[in-house]
Amino acid sequence: MNLKRIHHIDYVVRDLSRAIEQYRKIFNVPLENRERLESRGIELARFRLGETWIILVQPVRDNSPVKRFLDEHGEGFFHIAYEVSDVEGVASDLKARGIKLMPDSPRRGVEGWKLVDIAMEETLGVMTQLVESS
Amino acid sequence: MNLKRIHHIDYVVRDLSRAIEQYRKIFNVPLENRERLESRGIELARFRLGETWIILVQPVRDNSPVKRFLDEHGEGFFHIAYEVSDVEGVASDLKARGIKLMPDSPRRGVEGWKLVDIAMEETLGVMTQLVESS
Repeated sequence: MNLKRIHHIDYVVRDLSRAIEQYRKIFNVPLENRERLESRGIELARFRLGETWIILVQPVRDNSPVKRFLDEHGEGFFHIAYEVSDVEGVASDLKARGIKLMPDSPRRGVEGWKLVDIAMEETLGVMTQLVESS
Repeated sequence: MNLKRIHHIDYVVRDLSRAIEQYRKIFNVPLENRERLESRGIELARFRLGETWIILVQPVRDNSPVKRFLDEHGEGFFHIAYEVSDVEGVASDLKARGIKLMPDSPRRGVEGWKLVDIAMEETLGVMTQLVESS
């Protein structure tokens, strides 16, 4: 696998509008985009910082995985995503080496990003995604 | 304030040697540096990823703040650090706007980095540093 960069860092928040205001107040970074991803039950706001996206994520559905995470852990760091050039190939390679992925093969995120999550016990307790963003 | 990039992401770990091995096994990134920072009671390992350092941090003293964090939260994400060009100026500006810093003025990290922490309640529950690395 060849990691290219940190593609994005997600923060989970309770109230996206309030969080956007707070993030901008502290860091003075312009908001790039705000969108809903119905398939995941989330609304998200993206800020660009160098080669990385900072993404604030609010669950908008009670049964979304993000809502369960928020209820359990509260607001804060959610996950880190590393960019790779061939996520299908990397996923196959990791599986062949006995490393657990969730789900078993890549899914689609915003803007057609192809994502796969590595099980947390493999990644030092940090929720981690691999992303191919074309 | 002008954020330049994500300067580093810290992971807190129990056993640095084991964590280095695991990080390399999964991500296949070369280790850049391993060092001790006695003033903070930590040992750390740095990996370079694009414009950002990934830093694994193990407490090596029972009374270090990192040890307290590890005991309370377990292994995982520790903090995110954003690079700024003038950390003293940024710290003054934030204080003038009523934003709480810890400590009140920048301290030194590895390689002469000048660091200041922003109180977590200001940063959406994510431990956050500002860094000037010259």
